Amino acid sequence: MIRVTVWNEFLHEQTEEEIRKVYPNGIHECIKEFLQDDEITVRTATLDMPDCGIPEEVLAQTDVLLWWGHARHQDVPDEVVDRVQKHVLQGMGLLVLHSGHHSKIFRRLMGTTCNLKWRDADRERIWTVHPAHPIAKGIPEHFELPQEEMYGEQFDIPTPDDTVFLGWFAGGEVFRSGCTFTRGNGRIFYFQPGHESNPTYKNPVIQKVIRNAVHWLCPEQRIEIPCPNTESLEK
Amino acid sequence: MIRVTVWNEFLHEQTEEEIRKVYPNGIHECIKEFLQDDEITVRTATLDMPDCGIPEEVLAQTDVLLWWGHARHQDVPDEVVDRVQKHVLQGMGLLVLHSGHHSKIFRRLMGTTCNLKWRDADRERIWTVHPAHPIAKGIPEHFELPQEEMYGEQFDIPTPDDTVFLGWFAGGEVFRSGCTFTRGNGRIFYFQPGHESNPTYKNPVIQKVIRNAVHWLCPEQRIEIPCPNTESLEK
Amino acid sequence: MIRVTVWNEFLHEQTEEEIRKVYPNGIHECIKEFLQDDEITVRTATLDMPDCGIPEEVLAQTDVLLWWGHARHQDVPDEVVDRVQKHVLQGMGLLVLHSGHHSKIFRRLMGTTCNLKWRDADRERIWTVHPAHPIAKGIPEHFELPQEEMYGEQFDIPTPDDTVFLGWFAGGEVFRSGCTFTRGNGRIFYFQPGHESNPTYKNPVIQKVIRNAVHWLCPEQRIEIPCPNTESLEK
Amino acid sequence: MIRVTVWNEFLHEQTEEEIRKVYPNGIHECIKEFLQDDEITVRTATLDMPDCGIPEEVLAQTDVLLWWGHARHQDVPDEVVDRVQKHVLQGMGLLVLHSGHHSKIFRRLMGTTCNLKWRDADRERIWTVHPAHPIAKGIPEHFELPQEEMYGEQFDIPTPDDTVFLGWFAGGEVFRSGCTFTRGNGRIFYFQPGHESNPTYKNPVIQKVIRNAVHWLCPEQRIEIPCPNTESLEK
Repeated sequence: MIRVTVWNEFLHEQTEEEIRKVYPNGIHECIKEFLQDDEITVRTATLDMPDCGIPEEVLAQTDVLLWWGHARHQDVPDEVVDRVQKHVLQGMGLLVLHSGHHSKIFRRLMGTTCNLKWRDADRERIWTVHPAHPIAKGIPEHFELPQEEMYGEQFDIPTPDDTVFLGWFAGGEVFRSGCTFTRGNGRIFYFQPGHESNPTYKNPVIQKVIRNAVHWLCPEQRIEIPCPNTESLEK
Repeated sequence: MIRVTVWNEFLHEQTEEEIRKVYPNGIHECIKEFLQDDEITVRTATLDMPDCGIPEEVLAQTDVLLWWGHARHQDVPDEVVDRVQKHVLQGMGLLVLHSGHHSKIFRRLMGTTCNLKWRDADRERIWTVHPAHPIAKGIPEHFELPQEEMYGEQFDIPTPDDTVFLGWFAGGEVFRSGCTFTRGNGRIFYFQPGHESNPTYKNPVIQKVIRNAVHWLCPEQRIEIPCPNTESLEK
Repeated sequence: MIRVTVWNEFLHEQTEEEIRKVYPNGIHECIKEFLQDDEITVRTATLDMPDCGIPEEVLAQTDVLLWWGHARHQDVPDEVVDRVQKHVLQGMGLLVLHSGHHSKIFRRLMGTTCNLKWRDADRERIWTVHPAHPIAKGIPEHFELPQEEMYGEQFDIPTPDDTVFLGWFAGGEVFRSGCTFTRGNGRIFYFQPGHESNPTYKNPVIQKVIRNAVHWLCPEQRIEIPCPNTESLEK
Repeated sequence: MIRVTVWNEFLHEQTEEEIRKVYPNGIHECIKEFLQDDEITVRTATLDMPDCGIPEEVLAQTDVLLWWGHARHQDVPDEVVDRVQKHVLQGMGLLVLHSGHHSKIFRRLMGTTCNLKWRDADRERIWTVHPAHPIAKGIPEHFELPQEEMYGEQFDIPTPDDTVFLGWFAGGEVFRSGCTFTRGNGRIFYFQPGHESNPTYKNPVIQKVIRNAVHWLCPEQRIEIPCPNTESLEK
């Protein structure tokens, strides 16, 4: 059983009528609903819960953490970011969604600004450029999102381990829309689609990518990396 | 002319008689001395100077920053780390020396613990595994350091762009002793040898590696990476 | 069920008394014996069989191919190499063992000479430098082979996706002893230990690495990569 | 002085009136003309010359080889491919242009099919995704080619060292249009634009990319990689 925690800032769905129409119970509940199955158990957590809903004991029992944030990145305390980072480095999988590119935790793990170009309401076609990657299993060669926020290059990230998806936008831009990274003993996947005003997380292909990613991100074990003063092994 | 700033914590050389014997004027002055030539101009900076000796105007005029620290990493203020990171992401080269693996700035740029195994006073043989890399120009296939601190794997860093040198230790360990990274528009080189109690920076091969690295790390230009809201390019 | 084919040149075990003592039925039979279990079914193939024992129909039913060769690389016909390459690019896993570094198929997939340094009968300590990799699952931080052929750097391979193991040799060398690569839709693992005069494949840690590797190399599907002339998707 | 050899299959310009209008003296002469300057000396070679115009003595005096081929890849003898590969692995830079993706030498060095999607006469916008790479020096954030052959993903190449440019096509595709690789001691750059029926090599931005690439590909030295049987270094 893979234990997933879906974290959501949960702001727009509460403050903007238009967004609430798209995700009445919040993006986190929408993701929980389609993700939960015989192999995956899901809990949710939001910014305004104590400890942002992810105290030590929750993270210790989380195999894969999904992260959606946008307007309140700065309100996540540094101690929470420290804690999440520690767990990722020990093996907890991390799936950073859409505007999570600017979250403290993603920037912390990347070491870069994670800046990019952006524009509301474009049309995107996503190309699978690494079809043999487990995250791309069963995903068509290309698929379309009728409306999605444009995120365009230059995307300031370190070179990914694998670029699984590339995005083409009708407005003329390209983007590395699905990228994997390893940090410490943990796997990370960044996936660009998922703007709050579009029903992207209701798209079955998007759901399949996220489900595949959860399986791929799940570690076999947590491994701490110590810093020991060691004896010579020779004599 | 490449403008280098050599930053040194400058603690051991002032507080321990034995270390002062090795580097009477500090590690930074030793490095400055052998590095300065017709193509490279060097200034030094130390922890106890105002702004750690690297205020904005110094970094803005630095092409390559060398960083040596060990016991006082925590005394470098976060604002200084922010500033150095900003300049690296815009293109300033960064050469992290020896125990700088645990500096705030290196951990910030790597996103990992940068932990490793360690032991004083071993013998190291360094192998050039990427002889065509500009940093390895003129460096023999292998060379020895009669006494150096052992740093051993697992070294918790993201996969390097290139592993230029691998270290073999008489005590039985191996290490990725020379690794390159790109973060934003900046180049980074981590080079393991350089323990304060050994005269490593007086070794001509080590000096050549550092000189090569400075040339390779020097950017052609500083480039900021913005995060603009852009118009569609198609009509 | 993972369908494995173990390919062996099968020369030394037939012509040299000393080698026959180590592997009386050939290296391939030794590997088959320890690898076969509830999840893995193994067949073997050798150079002197028709089509080298790996005609199209065998490869089409092979999920992971293991390759051991040494003195007769040149006797593998180019058509056989073409066929194996085609299957790897479509997804068949390939585990290249020891002196297989100089096989036609490994050089074909790497594009380089795969040259290295070598010397008989050294002592090796293997370090796990990427403990979270599935191939390293359950493998200790380091383990020893009392006698193994030394393979040393510079090893002329393209930068691996992941370096899972590094080798330390008592004679003074280091080596990237376990490396992964992706070519087309196929995964490749090169694993250095396994000299014919040493009972390396009887070592339980080595057996575990090979078993882990077989699981990791097994594709979820075969995917052909075509080269189509396509219509515009816009209008 | 960088010594460049521009190799061209030189077929279409001789057999098709329409192509001759674009490149009256052949693509190789067009490239030679804009590339030659105070720092670069250029010779040309074509398929129908003895030894394809690139015998051992020419390659030995070539720092960077440019390769344009399309319809006659199969007419390049394997011995010529062997020779070029040997020189690349020793350090000679290789710039593979456009339909050279299917040349024997590029496939040899990549180990993959190098297949892709294609369609004549689309409009391309190229994005610089790694502006700090020396090949991108002075190249705008994006630029357009009013007409170019569409090359689309999936492009069957190993993960590049750096993806410098991404292509956006009006017809709806994306492509890794500028990629770097290292093989042995040699650097390789693949650059997608350059269809024979379009005057792409007369575009000043394209010319600048090629000139930058030549500088970046030029090795500091040729280094052979041997395969020696070596003595122990420890007693």
